[in-house]
Amino acid sequence: MGDIRPFHVMALLARARELEAMGRSIVHMEIGEPDFPTAEPIIAAGQAALAQGQTHYTPAVGLRVLREAIAGLYRTRDGLDIDPDRILLTPGASGALQLVLATLIDPGREVLMSDPGYPCNRNLVRLLEGRARLVPTDATHGYQLTPELARAHWTDATAALLVASPANPSGTSLTPGQLAGLHGLAGEHGAALIVDEIYHGLTYDAVAASALTVGDDVFIINSFSKYFGMTGWRLGWLVAPPDYIEALERLAQNLFLAAPTLAQYAALAAFTPTAEAIFEQRRQTFAARRDYLLPALRALGFDIPLEPQGAFYLYAGCRRFTDDSFAFCHALLEEAGVAITPGIDFGQHRADEHVRFAYTTSLAQLEEGVARLRRYLERQ
Amino acid sequence: MGDIRPFHVMALLARARELEAMGRSIVHMEIGEPDFPTAEPIIAAGQAALAQGQTHYTPAVGLRVLREAIAGLYRTRDGLDIDPDRILLTPGASGALQLVLATLIDPGREVLMSDPGYPCNRNLVRLLEGRARLVPTDATHGYQLTPELARAHWTDATAALLVASPANPSGTSLTPGQLAGLHGLAGEHGAALIVDEIYHGLTYDAVAASALTVGDDVFIINSFSKYFGMTGWRLGWLVAPPDYIEALERLAQNLFLAAPTLAQYAALAAFTPTAEAIFEQRRQTFAARRDYLLPALRALGFDIPLEPQGAFYLYAGCRRFTDDSFAFCHALLEEAGVAITPGIDFGQHRADEHVRFAYTTSLAQLEEGVARLRRYLERQ
Repeated sequence: MGDIRPFHVMALLARARELEAMGRSIVHMEIGEPDFPTAEPIIAAGQAALAQGQTHYTPAVGLRVLREAIAGLYRTRDGLDIDPDRILLTPGASGALQLVLATLIDPGREVLMSDPGYPCNRNLVRLLEGRARLVPTDATHGYQLTPELARAHWTDATAALLVASPANPSGTSLTPGQLAGLHGLAGEHGAALIVDEIYHGLTYDAVAASALTVGDDVFIINSFSKYFGMTGWRLGWLVAPPDYIEALERLAQNLFLAAPTLAQYAALAAFTPTAEAIFEQRRQTFAARRDYLLPALRALGFDIPLEPQGAFYLYAGCRRFTDDSFAFCHALLEEAGVAITPGIDFGQHRADEHVRFAYTTSLAQLEEGVARLRRYLERQ
Repeated sequence: MGDIRPFHVMALLARARELEAMGRSIVHMEIGEPDFPTAEPIIAAGQAALAQGQTHYTPAVGLRVLREAIAGLYRTRDGLDIDPDRILLTPGASGALQLVLATLIDPGREVLMSDPGYPCNRNLVRLLEGRARLVPTDATHGYQLTPELARAHWTDATAALLVASPANPSGTSLTPGQLAGLHGLAGEHGAALIVDEIYHGLTYDAVAASALTVGDDVFIINSFSKYFGMTGWRLGWLVAPPDYIEALERLAQNLFLAAPTLAQYAALAAFTPTAEAIFEQRRQTFAARRDYLLPALRALGFDIPLEPQGAFYLYAGCRRFTDDSFAFCHALLEEAGVAITPGIDFGQHRADEHVRFAYTTSLAQLEEGVARLRRYLERQ
């Protein structure tokens, strides 16, 4: 347990709530959750399912009709024909990630992943007595585990590559060519490629295809939390190669029995034109926030060499202001009333020089946050 | 993954659904889930929470107000003063079990548990690279890991005792004296006592106290699924010693972020007089079913030496009819239209001579099932 790291942002969030309880105003740019409530058609579907008494367990792999709806998404969006049998519904993307890692990783085997990256990944690998091999990445690599980096860090123990596109904390995506390169490398070694696509759909320039386009043997993790705005419902999914489905189902029975029933019925409404229009509108709102915040932070002196393609994060170098981003975040909270996340939550590599901004609050709040930052930085 | 066993009952259930789709009538006595829908006050609270837009993440440990309500339950029912800080809300009891085992079990360390027992337990231990040491138990032990058995099977590797009271599949409970004995034994060796109380409240003779009464250092797993009738909502809880809370919270953040939000708000209504009256009525319904089914099965020739105190299961010897309970269950399904669960789903010890009946269907259906069994057995 000593190896499982806490999320430092949780302590910051708790302190922010304390300050708010004392009457202080805090601009929240630390929260990795869309600020919008769940879309009305999904709420209404949840209400209807409750009225119909849909409160019993579903099958471990989830409702057939929802698995088919997700297959439909890959068909219309990516032109892919994915057998619904390959799609397992899980309690959040966390459940999907756990299923994949537990299935693929034996003790002592390694998973390559980028540093910075989503912190749960390495902790889950550790919990399974596997080893997360963190590959330092910078802006030159788009903060991503590129095929070249993966090849350079490959060892005899490497069992899987785990990437995210778009990624947390950088918001950057892998190109189709990079995904193909990673897929080829994994294939050469009989290893697995796992792609976290939980920010899929939340891209602001070009539409990104799913990594399923590079091969049927890729493991895809996705979620209703971010693009579909259903965080608290705890519903995700996994797409896996056909040969793994039986084992994954067995594991799902043991780990969590099934994903929440109500969330599954409600999520069916995500695939309606009304809901899709709301998602598109929200995507545009996120795009507008990014387009404001990115130049504003650069103007303040934060180092953001890349324009991130998606998610709702900016990973910013803060070396101009501090060589201790953790202390910087705490000072910002206490003295400027602005909450952001220190780099240490995402890894070790140059973590002290980086912070993450989340644009999960209104444009007005982002403007207020930037104004506070400006005043604070001018005082230093 | 090869060590993670499937639930055979799932294949039986799937076959039963197939037969039903072909027009056959099946009496379901295999399902470990109350047949009642979630109680109306809980449904109404869920509707209200949806209307209020309660769709964001809760803290990883769950809503404070629900943790306080659960503490209130221990206060009124067991006369115990449990700090709400010691109560963590989890995605089902599965989540609680996973948290406890991941926190307590290092690779190679052992967990003592009874055979027969709930099958997920040993699989989760295996997944963490621990070892489940299955202790064969019979009616003479009440199918429970008694202090004497635990002492006899203790090894240097033993890190925890895992018991359930009332238990699946036997429905039997541990006495306060036995719980105290197990607690004392664990204490002698610096090991942990984990008590699964997910069938708490579903007892039909005397009211059983929580194992928290024997010591503050017991780990308690519980759930809103069974007594509170909220299976598909996926909400459970864990009570842990104060020293473990910080580590458990850290782990919860990594494993599942938080329990489903809507379920937490809805569950608040479980602690109202209207809901409590419904639970009590349902408890009496289960009691009446047990009081019918137990003598009826004995009259057919099933060997049920103990009167189970709780849950909704009867663990029955079937040696008079077969020495292959797995084949027996399949034949019963195909030829008699009765679905029950083979002993193999609960362990190895005399599994071939046992089956489990669940009284999670109406008295009329139970009567029909018994009539079908009688005709089938007379034909043999």
